[in-house]
Amino acid sequence: MADKGLDPQDWAAFRAEARRMLEASIDQLEQAAERPWQPVPEDLQARYEIGQGGDLVSRIERDVLPHHGGNIHPRFWGWVQGTGLASDLIAGMAGAVINGNLGGRDHGAVRMERAVIDWTRAKMGMPEGSSGVLVTGTSQATVIAFQAARVKVLEGVRKDGQGTARLVAYAGEGVHNATLKAVELLGIGSANLRKVPLINGRMDVDALRAMVAEDKAAGALPFLVVGTAGSVDLGLFDDLDALADAAADEGLWLHVDGAFGAWTRIAEEPYRSLSDGIGRAHSIALDFHKWMYVGYDCGLVLISDEAAHRAAFAARPSYLEGADRGLAGGDPWFCDYGIDLSRGNRALKVWCALEMNGEDAFSDAITDNCRMAALMAETVKAQPNMALGMEAVSNVCVFTARVDLEPEAQSALNAEIAQSLQENGEAVFSTTRIGGVMMLRAAITNHRTRPADIGAAVAAVARLAEV
Amino acid sequence: MADKGLDPQDWAAFRAEARRMLEASIDQLEQAAERPWQPVPEDLQARYEIGQGGDLVSRIERDVLPHHGGNIHPRFWGWVQGTGLASDLIAGMAGAVINGNLGGRDHGAVRMERAVIDWTRAKMGMPEGSSGVLVTGTSQATVIAFQAARVKVLEGVRKDGQGTARLVAYAGEGVHNATLKAVELLGIGSANLRKVPLINGRMDVDALRAMVAEDKAAGALPFLVVGTAGSVDLGLFDDLDALADAAADEGLWLHVDGAFGAWTRIAEEPYRSLSDGIGRAHSIALDFHKWMYVGYDCGLVLISDEAAHRAAFAARPSYLEGADRGLAGGDPWFCDYGIDLSRGNRALKVWCALEMNGEDAFSDAITDNCRMAALMAETVKAQPNMALGMEAVSNVCVFTARVDLEPEAQSALNAEIAQSLQENGEAVFSTTRIGGVMMLRAAITNHRTRPADIGAAVAAVARLAEV
Repeated sequence: MADKGLDPQDWAAFRAEARRMLEASIDQLEQAAERPWQPVPEDLQARYEIGQGGDLVSRIERDVLPHHGGNIHPRFWGWVQGTGLASDLIAGMAGAVINGNLGGRDHGAVRMERAVIDWTRAKMGMPEGSSGVLVTGTSQATVIAFQAARVKVLEGVRKDGQGTARLVAYAGEGVHNATLKAVELLGIGSANLRKVPLINGRMDVDALRAMVAEDKAAGALPFLVVGTAGSVDLGLFDDLDALADAAADEGLWLHVDGAFGAWTRIAEEPYRSLSDGIGRAHSIALDFHKWMYVGYDCGLVLISDEAAHRAAFAARPSYLEGADRGLAGGDPWFCDYGIDLSRGNRALKVWCALEMNGEDAFSDAITDNCRMAALMAETVKAQPNMALGMEAVSNVCVFTARVDLEPEAQSALNAEIAQSLQENGEAVFSTTRIGGVMMLRAAITNHRTRPADIGAAVAAVARLAEV
Repeated sequence: MADKGLDPQDWAAFRAEARRMLEASIDQLEQAAERPWQPVPEDLQARYEIGQGGDLVSRIERDVLPHHGGNIHPRFWGWVQGTGLASDLIAGMAGAVINGNLGGRDHGAVRMERAVIDWTRAKMGMPEGSSGVLVTGTSQATVIAFQAARVKVLEGVRKDGQGTARLVAYAGEGVHNATLKAVELLGIGSANLRKVPLINGRMDVDALRAMVAEDKAAGALPFLVVGTAGSVDLGLFDDLDALADAAADEGLWLHVDGAFGAWTRIAEEPYRSLSDGIGRAHSIALDFHKWMYVGYDCGLVLISDEAAHRAAFAARPSYLEGADRGLAGGDPWFCDYGIDLSRGNRALKVWCALEMNGEDAFSDAITDNCRMAALMAETVKAQPNMALGMEAVSNVCVFTARVDLEPEAQSALNAEIAQSLQENGEAVFSTTRIGGVMMLRAAITNHRTRPADIGAAVAAVARLAEV
């Protein structure tokens, strides 16, 4: 029988290697501003091929650290990506040597997860006794919330399947793709997700009520309305109080996609008010890895009706029977609140972030990101040929580099500018279409961004727009 | 505007803290044998409450590291849990400062994920061109595989929902709960998962064929058969070649639940042969965090029909449009192969594990775990009043401490012994029922276990059985 196993044979040598890795890791964080994204070298895939062995830490320093996705850089505003925290490094070390499986049982990590969930629940204004479970992100949280909503209205669905009931869900135009993917996955069907028109960027609640009435009259079973707290494209917010009223009147489950926007709850005004009413939702999906800056991946679903949550997922066979004491104790087990039976330790990252920095530092950073989007909007407006795609409402700024060109030429130019700035490392914008024009889009969920970064980036756009 | 942000104000001080965390983390690994699970102190939950601040690393050393779930200990064999690797610590540090979002785009981490997937595909014997995506674990992998199988047979399901089609899936008695939870989640319904009887611990393939014929005759749509490579309870394996033949004849999608047992592919004989035929599956779900010992969470779904995989999940709206170059390049994007749009970096843990230790070390450890289960079985048989629940086939040993007692008394005693050994830190068994008797169960996916651990644990059981 093998006697060496997989632990280091020489702990002192391993310790030395690990120390080198730590110093290189801190350097990466400290020098984030000097390490923008860079195009992937052609031979990188070959360097990653399994089975080469050699000095692992040197390989990581040479082949891995430089080729990150760019989102640690102060001028990264592409898509909606968080930027990571120094506390993630602490959590990464501790988490690796705990190696927790948070599916269930009784150990510290599950207790910590409860603390993180309850803190978040309180911040969102959801009632005590609500349940929750940490997941990879809002996509997973959405699936879990929708299944809870479905089981609530269609009790036999776990056993009998969806069957002939035509469930209908509602969401505003521009709803995040995660909602679409969830109704597809559950077998509800995207055709049964009706898009409600927006008025001034918010779901038209009267239109919603009319659609529900129409569907009920047609024999369908309206069951779910999805409110948006921070639209991914433009950073817009539905009127969640109005949605909660409508949901109550119509007997719908109100789910709020708060992937990033839910965190306006801890921002200063006028941003905090954007998510007023969120605590009245039946479920909220949100991410820590976006606007709480915590390392990927880390999201949460909160559900106000604990029994409905549990009813949608609980099922433990004999090999997972709990016990009144010992390691198999510790009810409730998180595996009864979601899809996963084995679960990694996400709570530790959140806990380290909050305990190292304090909640106020997050409030400041989130508020500041909104102010940076406003600053970018002002800076854009001051440029002769630039124009906003819309006014910045929260942390998103969308603009075109040359409003004087034809739409097609604008689109081509904006796309070209986005790519060039990515390639030369100056800034990362993503793009989106507004009124048929592909525009530059900055979604600022970046605690490293300073006013000078905004100025430099808009100046770089102006320079490249001179064609 | 806030000028300090969330990066450390004093990098030297942060570096000192991080170094303390590293030394404590390595100590935890090096002293794993002296750190068994311990009952959770009553005040631990209060110690985790958010907002206390203070010296983070000291709090982690005092309140977090000691309260792990026990699975780092050499005599932990509860459920099927992996035991973690020193390489996880390296990956944890590097991963934290890369902070990759592997949903898509073009950066090193997605290239590394492709390398890890392709290495695994080859080891499983699946054809080149098969697709895959890393996920939290087999539960997620199962959902993804089943949705691909469903979309393949019911093309309109993403748009129209499941509707009136009565899809039927098949699995052996004792199939893992992940399969049940997946058919429930997708809206197929657990009543449409038919349990096929076992013969000598393997699915009765003739019975399967008869059930499929019966269901077809009744107008249902049989679409999926789930083979098991390593049953969670007993470590049993279906005859995967026979299942592949039957699946081909009957037009079924063959999915293999190989959560841990798939890794017998890299074990020595006679264990390797247990999973013969696995490469003929349409999909395989497996975990790295169990029998590859990699830190939680980390699993993989492999699908031989890349087009079917993509057809089940791809959907990118305008704000996620790809590009021919720049950061938005790098097709294909992993978000088109699963549920999650934001994705953490799981590949790095696997890559570090393999590159630090080499594949052979894993082959040895896996083979050795099976030999340890056999050794435990021999040791149990040599005890006067102990008896096996079944012969050890792979890495699982199930036994009763006192076969001379009535079934009810046996169950109570075995449960009591499991709890006592957990509480006193001697060993962790879980329990399962065989023929109505609750028995002790060791699932050995632990690279730290040595022959002396087996002897000590069985001796401890014998001691506690003297009542």
